[in-house]
Amino acid sequence: MENRYCVIMCGGIGSRFWPFSRTYRPKQFLDFFGTGRSLLQSTYDRFSRVIPPEHIFISTNEMYVDLVKEQLPEVTDDRILAEPQRRNTAPCIAWAAYHIQAINPDANIVVTPADHVILQEDAFAECIDKGMAFVEKFPALLTLGMKPTRPETGYGYIQIEDENDEDIKPVKTFTEKPNIELARIFVESGEFFWNSGIFIWNVCTVIKAMQRHLPEIVNRYEQNRAVFGTPDEKRFIEENYMACSNISIDFGLMEKASNVFVLCAEFGWADLGTWGAVYEFSEKDRYGNIATKGKQLRYDCNNNLIAVPEDKLVVLQGVSDCIVVESDNVLMICRRDDEQSIRKFITDAKVNFGDEFI
Amino acid sequence: MENRYCVIMCGGIGSRFWPFSRTYRPKQFLDFFGTGRSLLQSTYDRFSRVIPPEHIFISTNEMYVDLVKEQLPEVTDDRILAEPQRRNTAPCIAWAAYHIQAINPDANIVVTPADHVILQEDAFAECIDKGMAFVEKFPALLTLGMKPTRPETGYGYIQIEDENDEDIKPVKTFTEKPNIELARIFVESGEFFWNSGIFIWNVCTVIKAMQRHLPEIVNRYEQNRAVFGTPDEKRFIEENYMACSNISIDFGLMEKASNVFVLCAEFGWADLGTWGAVYEFSEKDRYGNIATKGKQLRYDCNNNLIAVPEDKLVVLQGVSDCIVVESDNVLMICRRDDEQSIRKFITDAKVNFGDEFI
Repeated sequence: MENRYCVIMCGGIGSRFWPFSRTYRPKQFLDFFGTGRSLLQSTYDRFSRVIPPEHIFISTNEMYVDLVKEQLPEVTDDRILAEPQRRNTAPCIAWAAYHIQAINPDANIVVTPADHVILQEDAFAECIDKGMAFVEKFPALLTLGMKPTRPETGYGYIQIEDENDEDIKPVKTFTEKPNIELARIFVESGEFFWNSGIFIWNVCTVIKAMQRHLPEIVNRYEQNRAVFGTPDEKRFIEENYMACSNISIDFGLMEKASNVFVLCAEFGWADLGTWGAVYEFSEKDRYGNIATKGKQLRYDCNNNLIAVPEDKLVVLQGVSDCIVVESDNVLMICRRDDEQSIRKFITDAKVNFGDEFI
Repeated sequence: MENRYCVIMCGGIGSRFWPFSRTYRPKQFLDFFGTGRSLLQSTYDRFSRVIPPEHIFISTNEMYVDLVKEQLPEVTDDRILAEPQRRNTAPCIAWAAYHIQAINPDANIVVTPADHVILQEDAFAECIDKGMAFVEKFPALLTLGMKPTRPETGYGYIQIEDENDEDIKPVKTFTEKPNIELARIFVESGEFFWNSGIFIWNVCTVIKAMQRHLPEIVNRYEQNRAVFGTPDEKRFIEENYMACSNISIDFGLMEKASNVFVLCAEFGWADLGTWGAVYEFSEKDRYGNIATKGKQLRYDCNNNLIAVPEDKLVVLQGVSDCIVVESDNVLMICRRDDEQSIRKFITDAKVNFGDEFI
């Protein structure tokens, strides 16, 4: 256990969940299901069972450091990696790797987003154990692939080289979000798994791979190895982070490296990427309505997703197939099948009324 | 002018405007059109032009006295008639008559609800002048009848005896809210006017009429004439008001008395009885939407009435023919043609969640 580390990434803004998610309080800090714990807190809780809590790092944007401290008071300052700018996942994961290597050069690291829902926590823990054991032995970049349960078009897929009966298999290709026809073929073939975005690797393995595939990011870190773990690290990041390429770890590393493996797993996983995902994932009443929060009276209403503040009463009559979300100073009612318009709403709100509602 | 008095009745709860209107803040205290003045304040302003303001009395329920004082700080305590219980309009108007008679036995009184909209204030003022002059000369119970502009089924109608060319004519019958076919016939006939619920009479005339038609209410007052205008009046009302019949002045007096006249007028009048009335009355954009308050972004939305707090942004997409109202801790979205269900919503809210949302 002493070599196990975890990096929880929670620097995103989650605009697809506007207005529930706001610039000043993105989705990972929200309690979507009324459990009393935000997505970040749930993620931290989940990993605390399999990783020594003092080895769990939180990577976030500088503007959310206070929120992280508020939600996870047990996380000490030295375990919060505060990015001075948004730079996508590759620079963030590279920084975390160098930072952790300075602490423990034998570290095996699991890197995870903070906005997943996982239902079977025991199966999940077992899977992390298995992955950690694998990367300890083999210089592999391991990604968790989820057995697909439906032809979801909102996820990326991983195709496996089916050359063994083990859970861990070499990856053949990564595929971006497919259309519905392709998604159906993927699922039926049995060769494709959902790309969860959870990665496990030994710190030396990932740094070596990044040196090869992401030199424009890693060279800066490599030439300044001595600053990591020292008081100068913060200044160094502030001066250099902006210059890192804005690139995802999937595109920049996983799709290029040859030592990529997938751990095929099944533990009731969902990426809460959109309201649609929340709708699919949540328990519905017999009229297809989901009420995640607030008190409700519904009449002649079907297939709505309704989320309003806890202390509010919503009366809904004759409304179907809608998303009804209220949060702070914004009430949004839109058709469920038009939720991609939310980005437009945000732009229009900004253009017309400034930052007050963003 | 010294004999002119006014009684503004504002003790109702306005449940048809829930959740905008609440038990603790009924519709007459709300600013429906964003003018900066509530319906009560607008009514007071309007009558202040034709009645000496120190002769304007406010009749309200005890629970709204503080709201009245807050909204009309110029109204002194002695001009607020606080009903200890809800007893409909007859007991309230009777009390006001005895109260004012004790101050000025020659008083001519206009009695008015507080929830009307009147567009042509000059025509209105002229009409009050004419009515006051009439009841000074003749012992008539005068009601203002509005020339109908459409076959409205939400109003009561007054049929005139068309025996002269004057604006003031004897009343033939009062009619309750008609169905649409009947309403069309009424409007086409030219013999019917909307019953505004605004009355003008000399104090002696109305007391005499009530002695005849509402003895069960007025006898108590009559036998205790000496208390009106004294410090004992409050105690007397508290002890006797509850025993008064719960009856409207229309049913209890106007439909029975023989000396009832109607002053036919036209001054852009509306009784804001329902959301439908507000919808009909308000200016709409080219998509038929009315936004009385709050900031809005609308996409593919038609014929909605939207009222939310001033500081809130509403994003509405793909929603038509609805009432969208948010006020304090309640958000209501219902079909415009189902607004009669609001009473049911209130009952259900009370049964399920107690008084918190009523």
